[in-house]
Amino acid sequence: MTTPHDVLDAADPLAAFRDRFVIDDDLVAYLDGNSLGRVPKATVERLTTFVRQDWGNRLIRGWDDSWVDLPVTVGDELGAALLGAAPGQTVIADSTSVNIYKLLHAAAGIRADRDEIVIDATNFPTDRYLVESVAASRGMTVRWLQPDLVDNVTVDVLAEALGERTAVVVLSQVDYRSGTLVDLPAITQLVHGAGAVVIWDLCHSAGIVPIDLDAAQVDFAVGCTYKYLNSGPGAPAFMYVAERHVGAVTQPIAGWWSAADLFAMSETYEVAPTIRRMLSGTPSVSGIIAVQEGVRLIAEAGTDAIRAKSEALTAYTIELLDEAGLEVVTPREAALRGSHVTVRHPDARRITDQMIARGVVPDFREPDLIRLGLSPLTTSFAEVEAGVRILRDCIRNA
Amino acid sequence: MTTPHDVLDAADPLAAFRDRFVIDDDLVAYLDGNSLGRVPKATVERLTTFVRQDWGNRLIRGWDDSWVDLPVTVGDELGAALLGAAPGQTVIADSTSVNIYKLLHAAAGIRADRDEIVIDATNFPTDRYLVESVAASRGMTVRWLQPDLVDNVTVDVLAEALGERTAVVVLSQVDYRSGTLVDLPAITQLVHGAGAVVIWDLCHSAGIVPIDLDAAQVDFAVGCTYKYLNSGPGAPAFMYVAERHVGAVTQPIAGWWSAADLFAMSETYEVAPTIRRMLSGTPSVSGIIAVQEGVRLIAEAGTDAIRAKSEALTAYTIELLDEAGLEVVTPREAALRGSHVTVRHPDARRITDQMIARGVVPDFREPDLIRLGLSPLTTSFAEVEAGVRILRDCIRNA
Repeated sequence: MTTPHDVLDAADPLAAFRDRFVIDDDLVAYLDGNSLGRVPKATVERLTTFVRQDWGNRLIRGWDDSWVDLPVTVGDELGAALLGAAPGQTVIADSTSVNIYKLLHAAAGIRADRDEIVIDATNFPTDRYLVESVAASRGMTVRWLQPDLVDNVTVDVLAEALGERTAVVVLSQVDYRSGTLVDLPAITQLVHGAGAVVIWDLCHSAGIVPIDLDAAQVDFAVGCTYKYLNSGPGAPAFMYVAERHVGAVTQPIAGWWSAADLFAMSETYEVAPTIRRMLSGTPSVSGIIAVQEGVRLIAEAGTDAIRAKSEALTAYTIELLDEAGLEVVTPREAALRGSHVTVRHPDARRITDQMIARGVVPDFREPDLIRLGLSPLTTSFAEVEAGVRILRDCIRNA
Repeated sequence: MTTPHDVLDAADPLAAFRDRFVIDDDLVAYLDGNSLGRVPKATVERLTTFVRQDWGNRLIRGWDDSWVDLPVTVGDELGAALLGAAPGQTVIADSTSVNIYKLLHAAAGIRADRDEIVIDATNFPTDRYLVESVAASRGMTVRWLQPDLVDNVTVDVLAEALGERTAVVVLSQVDYRSGTLVDLPAITQLVHGAGAVVIWDLCHSAGIVPIDLDAAQVDFAVGCTYKYLNSGPGAPAFMYVAERHVGAVTQPIAGWWSAADLFAMSETYEVAPTIRRMLSGTPSVSGIIAVQEGVRLIAEAGTDAIRAKSEALTAYTIELLDEAGLEVVTPREAALRGSHVTVRHPDARRITDQMIARGVVPDFREPDLIRLGLSPLTTSFAEVEAGVRILRDCIRNA
């Protein structure tokens, strides 16, 4: 017997966080915070102040005030609150795709004596496309893992692929389709055992799982901020480079923001000795400010409390889907999943459209998957109940 | 005898545009709109609506509504209003530096049988740094032009450097230090005569000079939007690829936004047949919206009227500087200058600081230059008069 949603909401220690967001829509349930998170009220205030006061009043003087340091200072804040990263290893800049591109070159340069990049065929398209094109441009080979969609990349699957040619391994901590959470520390250790370096894509895990990159001795990581970090569509991404690599890596987009002295505008390029070397051009100041507000909400709630609620939300969702007799793709063991639950159905696209017409927003992923995204700071158990109820209705009518 | 500033302001047909901007500061004169433009009031409204309604209410549905097309639709708007570019050749994306990087690879790929990139040693640092690193990564050589700072790159200076090895020429239409405006159509023709392609950096010319890229048969162009386009610090840049090249170019940051079908998330990468192939990752939606508002103000005023006022502002500035007996670096012939006027003085840095302390914001450029930026939609002749008067005071006290 499932616990009623109102009981679950009443007992939720993070329930009050929902009021910290703009919730002003015609929706019964928003179950797509894993694609685009809601707007924090603090961000509305902050952006208004930024436009009128910081940009409008300080004008160019804003760069001297603090803007120049924002990629690193907000990077440090994000690293401390979400990634278990000591200062000086995280920056906010560019898009996830641009950052993956930079990190692929940086990582391949660290193991320049090797010529293979390993990635799973289930990984997000932009990761796969960039691995293919960077490998081709560097004369490297791509070795494709073919894991089961649900189990995703395990130590066993990866172990077979690693060898003396492996330079770089690129993996996502949470699979964008199944929601499977893989064992980041164990896999990182395995990669290091083979003498390679790892780039972790944290797009679907940052902000919903406690992550400790420093403790796991991760080499590189990247992630977006518009999902669980609620920083807005196309907000700048983050990038992590372990301190031991910072002085050694080079990235190819050597724009002025990567130079040792930004405003010296000197005749010859000298790369910054710090994490700033990963930057390229002028960053979006309003974008970074929005990231900062999103990070602060997560820091305030704490990733342990967020993870506990995420587990409760996904467990409740799976219970309701089981009751409805639907095929759940996401792992049943809480420790093996992120914060979205995926249903497989041959009419997935049509059902998704019908759900949206009835005020429930999930999302569809090719070819037959419906993802229900559960954003711990904003999703209520009542939303989950209504969402799954309408999903059942739509399937019945499909 | 100089015409009084109040007479000039009274006769200015664009004077009313100043009221379309937030002007709410403690400054006597803002003479740095060539670094960071002021905030349009329409942008404040638009961003507020965007955050609360588009992001806050439509949430993920915004991508279906129109966000996915924004890089191209706003690119087309910018191309039509500012660049003389027919649709399908301009996108808004990333930073100027990232776009220069992409265009350098795209351009070098078009002339893959040649191995030299030509750039002037007076060009903006990010252009120079990127040319050096891209050339090195492709096994190409950089040929440095050494033009006079004031004359900048002329047909004569360039002609000597071009040859059978020249693949790509990278130039700025307006020099960021001297303000010199070079002859874009004649130089483009010269480059083509040598069998090479040109990348024009329009950072200091877009929005203040009528530009006709299609008519001049320019190959590639790039520019930023936070100067005369008033789109905010770190707003996304624009990029132009001539229609005849669109189907042929490749760029290295092959993220999912450059794919033929963004949401197919297919196993194999297929590049978009359109200008979308120049995109990489998720663009900043709020950033592009701010660009659109900036472009619309320029479209409304018209680049001919803007150019006329820019010429009047620079002429007036030079008159006042001459009266003060100061060394003006910027060309005296109106047709040869952009919209900032530069003074050389050995104490330039100290004078700049003193001016700022007295409420006049110019900017300093190494080693001895003070730039007075004149933004036709927002700068008044009264500001110029006050700015130069305080500059004189500060020099007297230096």
